[in-house]
Amino acid sequence: MNNVPLDLNPFFQPSSIAIVGASQDFTTIGGKPVRNLLAHGYQGKLYLVNPRYSEINGLACYPSIDAIPDEIDHVLIAVSKKHITGTIEQCIQKKAKFITIFGAGYAEVGEEGAELQQQLVELCRSHGIRFCGPNCIGSINVKQSLPMGFSNSFEKESFISGNIGLVSQSGALGYATFALGQEEGLGFSYVANTGNQADLNTLDFLEFLVSNPDTKVVSGYMEAVPDGQRLKKIALDAIQEQKPLVIFKSGRSDLGKMAAMSHTGSLAGSEQAFQAVAKQYGITLVKDTDDLIDSLKIFSRGKTASGNRVAVISTSGATGIMMADNCAELGLEMAVLSEDTRKKIKNILPDFASSLNPVDVTAQALNDKDIFRRCLDILIMAPEVDSLVVTTTFAGALVLKMMEEVIKADESSDKPILVSLTGPEDLVGSARRRLYEVGVPTYGSVARTTASLKKLVDYSDFLRKKTLLVHEEAANTIPQDDIQLKKHMTEYDVKALLRKWGIPVPQGGMAATEEEVRLLADTLSFPIAAKVVSKEITHKSDIGGVVLHINDAEGAVQAMKQIFKNVNEKIPGAEAEGILLEEMAPSPFLEAIVGVKRDPQFGPMIMCGLGGIYVEVLKDVSLRNAPVSPMEALEMIRELKAYPLFKGARGGAEYDVEAFADALVKISHLAVMLDDLEEMDINPLIIRPKGQGVLALDGLLIK
Amino acid sequence: MNNVPLDLNPFFQPSSIAIVGASQDFTTIGGKPVRNLLAHGYQGKLYLVNPRYSEINGLACYPSIDAIPDEIDHVLIAVSKKHITGTIEQCIQKKAKFITIFGAGYAEVGEEGAELQQQLVELCRSHGIRFCGPNCIGSINVKQSLPMGFSNSFEKESFISGNIGLVSQSGALGYATFALGQEEGLGFSYVANTGNQADLNTLDFLEFLVSNPDTKVVSGYMEAVPDGQRLKKIALDAIQEQKPLVIFKSGRSDLGKMAAMSHTGSLAGSEQAFQAVAKQYGITLVKDTDDLIDSLKIFSRGKTASGNRVAVISTSGATGIMMADNCAELGLEMAVLSEDTRKKIKNILPDFASSLNPVDVTAQALNDKDIFRRCLDILIMAPEVDSLVVTTTFAGALVLKMMEEVIKADESSDKPILVSLTGPEDLVGSARRRLYEVGVPTYGSVARTTASLKKLVDYSDFLRKKTLLVHEEAANTIPQDDIQLKKHMTEYDVKALLRKWGIPVPQGGMAATEEEVRLLADTLSFPIAAKVVSKEITHKSDIGGVVLHINDAEGAVQAMKQIFKNVNEKIPGAEAEGILLEEMAPSPFLEAIVGVKRDPQFGPMIMCGLGGIYVEVLKDVSLRNAPVSPMEALEMIRELKAYPLFKGARGGAEYDVEAFADALVKISHLAVMLDDLEEMDINPLIIRPKGQGVLALDGLLIK
Repeated sequence: MNNVPLDLNPFFQPSSIAIVGASQDFTTIGGKPVRNLLAHGYQGKLYLVNPRYSEINGLACYPSIDAIPDEIDHVLIAVSKKHITGTIEQCIQKKAKFITIFGAGYAEVGEEGAELQQQLVELCRSHGIRFCGPNCIGSINVKQSLPMGFSNSFEKESFISGNIGLVSQSGALGYATFALGQEEGLGFSYVANTGNQADLNTLDFLEFLVSNPDTKVVSGYMEAVPDGQRLKKIALDAIQEQKPLVIFKSGRSDLGKMAAMSHTGSLAGSEQAFQAVAKQYGITLVKDTDDLIDSLKIFSRGKTASGNRVAVISTSGATGIMMADNCAELGLEMAVLSEDTRKKIKNILPDFASSLNPVDVTAQALNDKDIFRRCLDILIMAPEVDSLVVTTTFAGALVLKMMEEVIKADESSDKPILVSLTGPEDLVGSARRRLYEVGVPTYGSVARTTASLKKLVDYSDFLRKKTLLVHEEAANTIPQDDIQLKKHMTEYDVKALLRKWGIPVPQGGMAATEEEVRLLADTLSFPIAAKVVSKEITHKSDIGGVVLHINDAEGAVQAMKQIFKNVNEKIPGAEAEGILLEEMAPSPFLEAIVGVKRDPQFGPMIMCGLGGIYVEVLKDVSLRNAPVSPMEALEMIRELKAYPLFKGARGGAEYDVEAFADALVKISHLAVMLDDLEEMDINPLIIRPKGQGVLALDGLLIK
Repeated sequence: MNNVPLDLNPFFQPSSIAIVGASQDFTTIGGKPVRNLLAHGYQGKLYLVNPRYSEINGLACYPSIDAIPDEIDHVLIAVSKKHITGTIEQCIQKKAKFITIFGAGYAEVGEEGAELQQQLVELCRSHGIRFCGPNCIGSINVKQSLPMGFSNSFEKESFISGNIGLVSQSGALGYATFALGQEEGLGFSYVANTGNQADLNTLDFLEFLVSNPDTKVVSGYMEAVPDGQRLKKIALDAIQEQKPLVIFKSGRSDLGKMAAMSHTGSLAGSEQAFQAVAKQYGITLVKDTDDLIDSLKIFSRGKTASGNRVAVISTSGATGIMMADNCAELGLEMAVLSEDTRKKIKNILPDFASSLNPVDVTAQALNDKDIFRRCLDILIMAPEVDSLVVTTTFAGALVLKMMEEVIKADESSDKPILVSLTGPEDLVGSARRRLYEVGVPTYGSVARTTASLKKLVDYSDFLRKKTLLVHEEAANTIPQDDIQLKKHMTEYDVKALLRKWGIPVPQGGMAATEEEVRLLADTLSFPIAAKVVSKEITHKSDIGGVVLHINDAEGAVQAMKQIFKNVNEKIPGAEAEGILLEEMAPSPFLEAIVGVKRDPQFGPMIMCGLGGIYVEVLKDVSLRNAPVSPMEALEMIRELKAYPLFKGARGGAEYDVEAFADALVKISHLAVMLDDLEEMDINPLIIRPKGQGVLALDGLLIK
């Protein structure tokens, strides 16, 4: 897991490029890359390969790769399937560092294509050469204006270079996003498209982008996660580097997932698991191209927010009200301005303008020199303000002048400043482009502005909390013994394991004879419960294997007899190891459910909820990837809609949330330790009143 | 309520216009309307009024309105507050039909301004003259290219005329929406801005637009609803006319509402009540300018969807998957293609393209002549398809050619066709503009496309269900007697009322003496409950006023004694009318809560939910404006997250949802009949197993 990331520098910044299948017809897949590289004045050595030509556009054309009198960093292959294997073999001989295969017709079209694709993978792997594609559009090094592919968006005179790295499984989606982003002033470092990602996949590129010093914002579109554990590692690195990681994952719905699988063949984990991991690892999730571009805008500005308190300057009542609505709906707080701040603002504004947040400077105030600028300065300096939104529907020279003030304020402050500019091109286009140019996050509507700010606030909050760092500490409190699980774990075995891991289980023990029952019962406080212990019986209650509310030793003996009789009748021949006698938990308590399930992508996931209708009918559960830190465990519990019940809603007791969280932490670490664990259920885990802890009343473990 | 709508034709299509305070400086509020009317070649008679000029731009300028030798339909007033009263008086003398007051400085700036504004209202009302504003930007008759105000968006050479009517309380928001909409090809009929809406308000304009034959889609932005009952009436008319009513209401959050109230002073109803009314009256709610424009796009096309089954043609896997995800998340169904349809598509597509929905024609298929067009035709004709989305990231001539096919298909079919076109201006701009031109709903992202389609599907569904028409029938089953409520209604009184209205209450009665208790108890099936009846006691249980599980007449007597003792101790001097003896409901049952509360805007609202944690902790409630139809009542119950419990979740019984719905209908009609009802609570209403009905166990009524 701690490998050095693959060095993709020769891929993105090749000293030499060969284009195999180069064409003089610049409308074809073999011609477009030639034209694009020539148009952008590639400074390295460009070798064209095509036996049909001796030159293209004055550039020598070689009959084969062998014939090139030089080393090649990056080979772009535009030949058809028929010639692919021979071409790859030549690349291997030439010791080319990277290959991009543009052509389609491989795994995406059926078994025959998949087979050929797999052969290419094996061929390249066995010679240590890596390739991108097939079925991809290519990549672009925006820093050096170096387009290596045939996207329509490469046919511009110049590109905006910047700090955003993007990798997209889909070429269509990736380059539409790139082109749209460029239109709105977004500067990119590198963009790649992995297509069928037979060899290099989205994670290889994300990992490189996280390590790449030109890239400060790392983003990706994927239809499935190629490797869950690796995504987590990349996310950790991104946090370390303080680079926001923005992921647009489609295939969220069952039908979408089916469609995506037919594309990629990757093992699909559950969408819920992916979302839980994203939450835990500070990954910003987006669900649409607009959403992706909006997020890149605010993250590429490079600021973080020190809290969720937003100040708003509006030029009309309406957009101010809309900001207040949107903030409330997203859980952002409209900053409560201090007496001091309000006094300063009142001194500037005319009587009728509002000095409350949203500060409505009104149309008239804007005619007065300096009012807008001074309000801006006061609010951005105010300690009770974490970020500032300017929202206007103004047009023409007026809004352009205002925006110059916004740009100055943005430069002078570490606090995020966002602009919501609603209007058509002819009225607000020039102001919008000016803001794009300098990188002030600018949006066409109040809703998009607040949604983006919310993403920044959440990310900043995540960085501040350092949730992941707390993991290590928690892990130290966990027993590190090697655990051997029996082939079949009975309730008794599971409880012994839980006890060893510091999760309280009821006082009690196992007894197999009348004598043992009596002896054991005398050591317990009544009432007690008796349950059959047998590896052949999972649903104990259903077959009469449980007796509750036993009030003395004699009752316990009777219970054992009754249980054995029931078991014999219901499951003849079932072997019982004995009965489990345990003290019953005194009221009051809440019944929780804790579950662990292994996700094929991300490993063990831990779930909690309240028993009965809460989980079964209301689906009121929290999910996280194991292990969880104490902070995450508390967050899981607080996320439950039923959370008020823990805090004494409806006149009930206040329950031991801390002990519940502690149990979640321990169970999550246990789940990670047990390599062969498929599923574990603690149902119920009794949560007792504050200070009295928890009790695992039943436990099931499936390997 | 059944008035003829105000005739705003002279307002929007005046034969003569006077501009008072007309200025030759065309950058001012008095000059811009002059320039705008001249620029657009107003065909009626334009009279300028300003004592300081004799002519402006060659047009005669009158010293006062009196001096105009003609009748005036619409007077635009650009004078300051100082001259407003005199000007209005002249308008009255002149018998002008409508006035628009542009100037600010009235109710929005404080008490003094509010007072002057109120004087204007009284002055105009007493002479039967209506005015728009003050503090507004003006209005535009787009049909006749007739801008009557000073919006920046009026300064275009020409406008796109169409079937959308828009009224906005905010000028900034309204005209930004108008301008943005025009940029995206939206055609409008009339647009107005009501500003402080001292006289004419948003509802006056909505009502006019619903009745106006040029307008097929009616839309409005409002910060508060001026009159809830009237909005309902307008919504009913809109349904009758089959015109979608699209409302963007801000002031949804508490802070937003506060900000809005300071603007308008209108009585704010609850946001929940507004949303319930919108749902019941088929009003499409939007929350953002983008959302508003997107909705107008699809509604102005004038088609409805016969169901929620969507077919998708994509040119890349990614956008197809995204469509599937978005449909799933919004509750739209990806159409399951029939064998027949799939066979037809397979015949056309290359092997590797997907004939499943989403149908991915892939980049290669598009090179082949006619494949796209034929897929389009097959899908739009398929009976299993209700609407079609084409999604592509293609660019240039290719996409333009594709879109010509889309336009033909759209013309030839009644089914909605939407296009998702993701890309920048230079790549997809011309295709986008072509679609705007012909009015095929076109969006820049998959998410916006599906969100708009969802709104059309919901609206179409609403029209089909005819929920509102069913009201009448239900109302006929309700007793129409005149009801006189006592000043203080005890539980006994409330139950008598409920029984009369056909809502079952437990068998029982009231007794005041030992003898009465014995006689009454003998007529009942045990166990029974005893409760104190007193208009001075609301929380009976808290003071020991309730005894449950009484098993014989003697027990009932003892219960009465105990209750009277408790009452005497806890509330000395409280007068008890007696005790209520009632049979207890046999298990099993669910405890529901039904509440009625009068909303200041919309009148009585009815709420239901399950008792205990469901309402109190989980806030799991449904809300509607009373009365509700049987269909709406069922919908209320189905909306509850706890609904599975009614259908026998967790091995429980199936409960009597129909009887519950029937009770909701009756209670809602009762709520409407009782003019002076403030609040009513039936808690609990017991829902018994299917076929066994409901029982109101307790009732509280506050006038």
